[in-house]
Amino acid sequence: MLYKLVAMDGKTMTIAARRMQTTWEGTLASGAGQLGGGSSGALDGLDVTWAARTEQPNGKTSPEELAAAAHSSCFSMALALRLGEHKVHPQRLSVQAEVSLDEVDGVPTITRSDIKVRAAVSGLDQQSFERVVDEAAALCPVSRLFAGADITVEAELEQD
Amino acid sequence: MLYKLVAMDGKTMTIAARRMQTTWEGTLASGAGQLGGGSSGALDGLDVTWAARTEQPNGKTSPEELAAAAHSSCFSMALALRLGEHKVHPQRLSVQAEVSLDEVDGVPTITRSDIKVRAAVSGLDQQSFERVVDEAAALCPVSRLFAGADITVEAELEQD
Repeated sequence: MLYKLVAMDGKTMTIAARRMQTTWEGTLASGAGQLGGGSSGALDGLDVTWAARTEQPNGKTSPEELAAAAHSSCFSMALALRLGEHKVHPQRLSVQAEVSLDEVDGVPTITRSDIKVRAAVSGLDQQSFERVVDEAAALCPVSRLFAGADITVEAELEQD
Repeated sequence: MLYKLVAMDGKTMTIAARRMQTTWEGTLASGAGQLGGGSSGALDGLDVTWAARTEQPNGKTSPEELAAAAHSSCFSMALALRLGEHKVHPQRLSVQAEVSLDEVDGVPTITRSDIKVRAAVSGLDQQSFERVVDEAAALCPVSRLFAGADITVEAELEQD
């Protein structure tokens, strides 16, 4: 497997660590935050606000959109790996995640991440495709990280 | 409280849902993904690869960096809220998250998100500040989403 390092039995070995910092100025309602100091720099300078998070995004990202991006990108990698192990090489996969922030008993809570997978895959029927998608869901580290939410997965096979 | 909607007792009410899609082409090792279709557009067009995720970022984000961005931005909002409730208004907060991907018994697993908070806060001693940071940690929806990982929190009071 691609992610297999020279692991000792039962041990934990670090693959990667990635950082991001948010600098916040002002109150929650009227203030704003800015991402910076990230491991890659790709997200540095992005702004976040409470209004953009809970009303209209207006071009600003949010914890939920970032979580959806983490989930969809991780899931797509897990699926690319599992399909490859089944000798299936789709031209393209798309994985959408929708992360929902709800108020549960008065407390804002991320309750769900809903995954929709679409792929044009030759040589797999819908049932086999769904089985491979289930394998990817079980492998995806972000799916397991998000243990506090319900995760649903829909898989749709497109015509190649 | 700012996030309080007109909630019915014991019911769940949606605050916001945010989407992101990853389109992946090729194998895990040699292929690449691109973020798109996001709720805000702020992350659209960012590239992800397995090599950038597990070796050097080389300017590309990754599921772990995105998860760190979700956690740090959410935590900073929760802390801004709790400090405001304590009538404390720091000039600036910074919240760093470091998310670690490790191999645990042969399976890639996000094991930790380590939070470091720094703030210049007049009128709070270190102990009181740590108590408010603990309240923010308990409130932060992303901290609760990340139930699959260990979360550590360090708080450092800076001179105002």
